[in-house]
Amino acid sequence: MHPRLVSATTRSLRATLSGPVHLRALVPTTLIPASRKLNQSSSRSLSSSAATAHSSSNPPMAFPCVDHLEQRTQKFLQQSFDGGPEPSYSNPVSGYSLYHHKKPFLLDHGGILPSFEIAYESWGELNEDKSNVILLHTGLSASSHAKSHPANPAPGWWEKFIGPGLAIDTNRFHVVCTNVIGGCYGSTGPSSIDPKDNKPYATRFPIVTIFDMVRAQFEMLNSMGIKKLHASVGASMGGMQSLAAALLFKERVGKVVSISAAARSHPYSIALRFTQRQVLMADPNWNKGFYYDKVPPHSGMKLAREIATISYRSGPEWEQRFGRKRSQPTTTPSLCADFLIETYLDHQGERFCLQYDPNSLLYVSKAMDMFDLSASNSAETALRRARNTVRLQEGKGSTAPENAATSPEEQLIQQQQEQAVCSTGSGSAVAEAAAKAKAKDDLDDPKAQLNDLKAGLSTIKDIPTLVLGIQSDILFPVWQQKEVADCLRQTGNKNVTYYELDSMYGHDAFLLEIVNVGSAVKGHLELKE
Amino acid sequence: MHPRLVSATTRSLRATLSGPVHLRALVPTTLIPASRKLNQSSSRSLSSSAATAHSSSNPPMAFPCVDHLEQRTQKFLQQSFDGGPEPSYSNPVSGYSLYHHKKPFLLDHGGILPSFEIAYESWGELNEDKSNVILLHTGLSASSHAKSHPANPAPGWWEKFIGPGLAIDTNRFHVVCTNVIGGCYGSTGPSSIDPKDNKPYATRFPIVTIFDMVRAQFEMLNSMGIKKLHASVGASMGGMQSLAAALLFKERVGKVVSISAAARSHPYSIALRFTQRQVLMADPNWNKGFYYDKVPPHSGMKLAREIATISYRSGPEWEQRFGRKRSQPTTTPSLCADFLIETYLDHQGERFCLQYDPNSLLYVSKAMDMFDLSASNSAETALRRARNTVRLQEGKGSTAPENAATSPEEQLIQQQQEQAVCSTGSGSAVAEAAAKAKAKDDLDDPKAQLNDLKAGLSTIKDIPTLVLGIQSDILFPVWQQKEVADCLRQTGNKNVTYYELDSMYGHDAFLLEIVNVGSAVKGHLELKE
Repeated sequence: MHPRLVSATTRSLRATLSGPVHLRALVPTTLIPASRKLNQSSSRSLSSSAATAHSSSNPPMAFPCVDHLEQRTQKFLQQSFDGGPEPSYSNPVSGYSLYHHKKPFLLDHGGILPSFEIAYESWGELNEDKSNVILLHTGLSASSHAKSHPANPAPGWWEKFIGPGLAIDTNRFHVVCTNVIGGCYGSTGPSSIDPKDNKPYATRFPIVTIFDMVRAQFEMLNSMGIKKLHASVGASMGGMQSLAAALLFKERVGKVVSISAAARSHPYSIALRFTQRQVLMADPNWNKGFYYDKVPPHSGMKLAREIATISYRSGPEWEQRFGRKRSQPTTTPSLCADFLIETYLDHQGERFCLQYDPNSLLYVSKAMDMFDLSASNSAETALRRARNTVRLQEGKGSTAPENAATSPEEQLIQQQQEQAVCSTGSGSAVAEAAAKAKAKDDLDDPKAQLNDLKAGLSTIKDIPTLVLGIQSDILFPVWQQKEVADCLRQTGNKNVTYYELDSMYGHDAFLLEIVNVGSAVKGHLELKE
Repeated sequence: MHPRLVSATTRSLRATLSGPVHLRALVPTTLIPASRKLNQSSSRSLSSSAATAHSSSNPPMAFPCVDHLEQRTQKFLQQSFDGGPEPSYSNPVSGYSLYHHKKPFLLDHGGILPSFEIAYESWGELNEDKSNVILLHTGLSASSHAKSHPANPAPGWWEKFIGPGLAIDTNRFHVVCTNVIGGCYGSTGPSSIDPKDNKPYATRFPIVTIFDMVRAQFEMLNSMGIKKLHASVGASMGGMQSLAAALLFKERVGKVVSISAAARSHPYSIALRFTQRQVLMADPNWNKGFYYDKVPPHSGMKLAREIATISYRSGPEWEQRFGRKRSQPTTTPSLCADFLIETYLDHQGERFCLQYDPNSLLYVSKAMDMFDLSASNSAETALRRARNTVRLQEGKGSTAPENAATSPEEQLIQQQQEQAVCSTGSGSAVAEAAAKAKAKDDLDDPKAQLNDLKAGLSTIKDIPTLVLGIQSDILFPVWQQKEVADCLRQTGNKNVTYYELDSMYGHDAFLLEIVNVGSAVKGHLELKE
């Protein structure tokens, strides 16, 4: 640092140029690209910006990222005044089929769908005895479009895993993929119309569970006359569904594939999803879920996706891909996206924020948090189902949301109901379930919790299962995969295949590791027992 | 599940009770605590809620967490109308001393502080030759209050690490801890008054770097007549400062302690901080940083802290501490805080949201992102300092924020300036710096980047350094600690101590592992070379 020396040289350089003493004077005009040669007005603005005395010691920062969000809000408001279209979350998908379920469907936490629809797509021929079906379950925000087909030639989310000779061989199998209930890509979810008042459900949509999603899928399979699946296959939330299907319908599932999933959500993954939901719900445009004829909470959705993206990938990948590179290396650091990793996250958020229904994100991610295959949870669920079936038969309708204002009186009512239900017959499944459910309160000990999980998984001890985990996965860490495999083995399941991949793609590896994930899936699906 | 059986028994139970057919009828009144025995009106409300026919298929959800945020906003608005007090971010601290720096201070990215203050606290006697000083650096949001003392008896953030016979032995050392510039606990930051217009800087505060923070600290040490530190000590961002101090003032630092820090921020940690900033900036009350006389962005701050908390702790700890327990196990699942881990995060956010200035969070976390001890970054910084010193001497004032609207012309101006600066003398430090800085553009190769880092760290090859990392740390993963230690060793530093702790407390272990962290620090500080 030789400031005086530098200063002198700068001055001498400037002396060779004419004009007012401002920054512009340092640049020979020949250095400026012809297309950008300054006209008088822009020259004035540049010199004025350089010469302006600020009223503050430093100039205020610019926040183009904040302006951008505000502009989008204004655009929506304008559209709303113009009667323009709202974002349609089913735009990204088309060419799916619909299963219509016309009877009321009771959900695990007491809600009721008066009817529901499931969007599905399929690939490969269904054989004569309908024994070659693979039910493919999706992750949180995916549609039924796992693979391109004539009615929708866009690449699907597992495009390279499904096809003749591929991981799921369409020469052998009839693959069916659905959009989950609670979703927004054709299946009934919060953005669907409540037949009772012809308005979107919004947050009047009832809480759904992974079990509910799977039970709805099996209603669809019933209508198709499919008695038994060759396999139930899925990754991430799809892996949860895949395991849940085996647990709920053990006679109807031939094999299970569970990739980067879990037998129960652990608190770290709940925390990651919780922050996404809170960020979304804090967007004033979310409006407690009633935004369908208004400005959507695009800002909250963008932020939620940015947080999600952090949990989907891994540090090592970003180290290699982005390192510490900045998007505009010569500029002053900015509080908007600045490093390449930031522009990447920003881009992921931008891409997603109008593609998926915010309320679906809330309900489906909550379903993941609640996922627990332990025996006590299955018992509790059975008990609630029984209790709510009573309510339904008595014409009481959907259970009130007890969460917000459960008074001691109401809690007593619940306990009484449970006692009434339990006392209906000793030795009955419900009584047994109640006893197990009650036992859960005492499960403070991790070992007891693990035994509870083993007892739950023992239901699928006869089903060959592939469990596959990724070592760099933060959201569904590999110890959770091992937990599934170990529990299954310890319940006596002799056909558990367990692989760990050293991929650096984190949770998203199931979408990217075509060879490593694909071979494992293919081997498991095609191996003769 | 035997719904019919259950139903019959429920009916028979109800038949033994009189009164209208609603839920209440199931509860013998003796079961209701005397204090809650229903009067007529609450009984009516309960029965009416049970009997009410909803206009929707399911009742709407309640969102007490959203209501709570709105209520707080309303409370602030009310206070504002009443002329009531705004939140004071320096409330949590008191009893600190102030160093006043009365001359303009040029920051690394071209900003200027016309003057600044540093809040500091100290413990232990300063010896006669002022050779027993330990400069303790803080993490992102900490104050100078590391330890209780008569003027502020509240426990400090490193209470059990500082004291007679403890990790930093106050019988031996004079410990000085400062609040960083950019912070809000007494030192000059965005919430401070800009002397130019007597209004808070807000986002007119210039971008600060970790180097700036440390340079400001050394201005303070100068005023105290402290020529050389016994040691520079810090964890997290404090560890960054600790290393930076050695790099900038190698003759003035005797030993270095760097705990859970890094020699350069990696993209995953940048991503985690980026989402926190974006969430905060998306709060409409943030208002581009100008909220000091308005409603503070308490909601954005709460959310940012929730995300931060995820990066401060670890999965295994939460697995043991919270597991899958819910805060109110008998209630219907809620989209507000529901699992214990969620109420914990919510609580962390609540506690923090009015305790720390939101703009300080933006500036200080950005400083962490920019941190990079590589030779090319030091060279770039030196170059910018030289350039901006010229500007300052010419009375041009603070550099305009180039980030928002750097036109090609302006970029050319910058390049020209750099060329002017570089051409001032071959062999000069600046020219060398410029050459190194230019070389950074070509550093695509991770190996070259590592060599760049080694070159940067070679400055402190003669300073005994303790590097300590936590194996469960996600924010500053242990490989980053090893990177620091390995680089230092490879530059020829023969006094590098490197420990990995298997603590399950993640990044926060430096606050909690009193024995494991404490012994390492004590040993390093007291070992005779």
